[in-house]
Amino acid sequence: MRGWGPGRDATGDDAAAGLSRRRFFGLAGAGTAGVLVAGTAGGVIGRATADEGAPGPAAATGAVEFTGAHQAGIVTPAQDRLHFVSFDVITEDRDELVAMLQAWTTAARRMTAGLDAGSVGAVGGGQYDVPDDTGEALGLPPAGLTLTVGFGPTLFTTADGVDRFGLADRRPAPLVELPSFRGDAIDPARSGGDICLQACSNDPQVAVHAIRNLARLGAGVISVRWSQLGFGRTSSTSTGQDTARNLFGFKDGTDNLKAENTSTLDQFVWVGDDDQDWLAGGSYLVARRIRMRIEQWDTATLNDQEQTIGRAKGTGAPLGQQAEFDPVDFTKQVDGEFAVPQTSHVFLAHPTNSGTAILRRGYSFVDGSDGLGRLDAGLFFICYQRDPATGFVQVQQNLRDDAMNEYVQHTSSAVFACPPGVTGPDDWWGRALFA
Amino acid sequence: MRGWGPGRDATGDDAAAGLSRRRFFGLAGAGTAGVLVAGTAGGVIGRATADEGAPGPAAATGAVEFTGAHQAGIVTPAQDRLHFVSFDVITEDRDELVAMLQAWTTAARRMTAGLDAGSVGAVGGGQYDVPDDTGEALGLPPAGLTLTVGFGPTLFTTADGVDRFGLADRRPAPLVELPSFRGDAIDPARSGGDICLQACSNDPQVAVHAIRNLARLGAGVISVRWSQLGFGRTSSTSTGQDTARNLFGFKDGTDNLKAENTSTLDQFVWVGDDDQDWLAGGSYLVARRIRMRIEQWDTATLNDQEQTIGRAKGTGAPLGQQAEFDPVDFTKQVDGEFAVPQTSHVFLAHPTNSGTAILRRGYSFVDGSDGLGRLDAGLFFICYQRDPATGFVQVQQNLRDDAMNEYVQHTSSAVFACPPGVTGPDDWWGRALFA
Repeated sequence: MRGWGPGRDATGDDAAAGLSRRRFFGLAGAGTAGVLVAGTAGGVIGRATADEGAPGPAAATGAVEFTGAHQAGIVTPAQDRLHFVSFDVITEDRDELVAMLQAWTTAARRMTAGLDAGSVGAVGGGQYDVPDDTGEALGLPPAGLTLTVGFGPTLFTTADGVDRFGLADRRPAPLVELPSFRGDAIDPARSGGDICLQACSNDPQVAVHAIRNLARLGAGVISVRWSQLGFGRTSSTSTGQDTARNLFGFKDGTDNLKAENTSTLDQFVWVGDDDQDWLAGGSYLVARRIRMRIEQWDTATLNDQEQTIGRAKGTGAPLGQQAEFDPVDFTKQVDGEFAVPQTSHVFLAHPTNSGTAILRRGYSFVDGSDGLGRLDAGLFFICYQRDPATGFVQVQQNLRDDAMNEYVQHTSSAVFACPPGVTGPDDWWGRALFA
Repeated sequence: MRGWGPGRDATGDDAAAGLSRRRFFGLAGAGTAGVLVAGTAGGVIGRATADEGAPGPAAATGAVEFTGAHQAGIVTPAQDRLHFVSFDVITEDRDELVAMLQAWTTAARRMTAGLDAGSVGAVGGGQYDVPDDTGEALGLPPAGLTLTVGFGPTLFTTADGVDRFGLADRRPAPLVELPSFRGDAIDPARSGGDICLQACSNDPQVAVHAIRNLARLGAGVISVRWSQLGFGRTSSTSTGQDTARNLFGFKDGTDNLKAENTSTLDQFVWVGDDDQDWLAGGSYLVARRIRMRIEQWDTATLNDQEQTIGRAKGTGAPLGQQAEFDPVDFTKQVDGEFAVPQTSHVFLAHPTNSGTAILRRGYSFVDGSDGLGRLDAGLFFICYQRDPATGFVQVQQNLRDDAMNEYVQHTSSAVFACPPGVTGPDDWWGRALFA
């Protein structure tokens, strides 16, 4: 069993009282090809990878350590599936909110380790109890689950200026709703929110299970405002990962910030000591649902597509270069024209020209069709940064003449402040904020 | 390269002209842990498994043979992800419809083998061509992709009795819209349709890519009417598969028909010689989107849940028995009560009491939330049968007093006749129907 603190086995009580997912798994003897890493000691990020050699299916089933200086799910090598949810807080009682965050933390510790959500398990409690866990993840491994929490601007002060939970003076100055950008078509019904949870896993059922059980623990305290499922990570966040393709068919996130570049992360991703104390070591999350005009894109020539993006579709190489990771050369000319057009997405979004950097962590989505025979599909863009104003907002403002704008439309917007990681066995999500 | 007929390598032209997904993959040298089975000879269903030993990640990346007496995707061991789409035919020109079905078949042959959709690939065509393929599956293995086509009642005759494509006298008698059932709340906007495509794969990006490229090939001929993504297969269709759990947390499909029981399949799944000639060896597909009342279910005690289903939540054993695959004993009593309640889902749905059997092939879905703070989640139920009247309709009518009805609501309905498999290199989807 993984230890969460010196001298304490945080799941010891559960091992006696309930039937853990992993134990159930063992008892049932259900076959799976994955290697269960949750049961081994250690559990640092990437442990499965380190133990197993190159990243592969074995690593995909393992556990990611929940505790640490930063929350998992930010620089953790991006898993393949996403379930993101934004909640409204419906109670006015601060104590209820605190109790829920504590209960959430306990359940998140368990579920990220591959256990069920509570000690009265789906099958191990009394026959006349309502189970603590809903059961659909029984027998499934941890599958790289991370759970990341964030607090929205409205948790601190309502639009009318009401200090709902006595948090107004702890509101970080950068935590304000994003400005409007050219071309935005924001749907308020799937924007904003008081609290967000980002669940990432290599198994969608594990991600869905986690969000469902946390939402259930919050009954009477929070209500789902909007949610989004995603598949196919579109940005790698570690040098050990291949670059995946987005729904435009292009490799996406080649020049993303990577977990291994810790000094760059300190510069651009982690909140330092120039913000609210409770947020040091945290990060700001910006979420934008970006609808892609798939049908229009699919009628464009290969040349149009590559000039729009600024990279070759096949290799992912910057135009004018040979290989994906060749540096983008903004000075190179071909036939008297810049190889990388000045209106291309890569040109405008690149740190060289935007003057900043963000850690992208987006997922493709297909939400069926839109009633007009078109795919309702695109990119659920998530990024992390030290300050939204000098992160996403600065990049997005630099994209105002991006040729890609013809093919995309932002349909939702949200920003959250994600506290630092939970460290000790008694720590909980938001402790430093509410303490 | 897999051969699709004696003496012919159907992809030979593409190997010369374009850059196949697999070839691109090889050139790029992108790392993945999966074993590419598409490139090997043979390609019978389960070949990857047979070559590799027990089912595992290697099998999940391999190719499923497209051709055969029956369409793949019916008794093929259920893959983990689904993209299902229903189309309206918008042309009045039979030749256009036939040309599209031929183009679809060519593209389906390619994509199920792990190739791109057409020979002017996403990266291998001319720079000023519109690529045949959209590119997002470049570098991905076949991932068990199957594509299964079906024809709806309205393709043969409209509601007004118009014979749209000269097919009225070829309409199978059993192909009629399903009757209403107690408790139905059917949304017409996501029901019915002229043609359906079921894409199943172990990688959602591969399934989405396939549907997108087929929809694109049908521009001007068909329009997406509705679509549904699913994850977490809820029924195993092969004795080699574990039984997965549905969103009620229960093992689902334990007593499902299995691919290995060929005589039972002949009896209950495959259309015989007592129907339209063109449909012999085909099957009828019934699709029902079943919303689950997750929040209500989650407040029920373990006992209530088990009495509702008729099985133990942990083991999946029928109530009164010990292990999942123990036979259901409808006569056994415990404390003077039947162990398996007569209103339980298992009691009413079981072949013993429904008098029939269907091949289930459903997937869980979570389509975000419903605006009232509840998960919009449930089961996208798909089943195959020899005749809907003695298949799904008979089972569903027997469920009128099912205790589970308190927790579910059917919100969409559709029925399609799926032709037999494509056999030779010149065969195409629907040839026997349109010939």
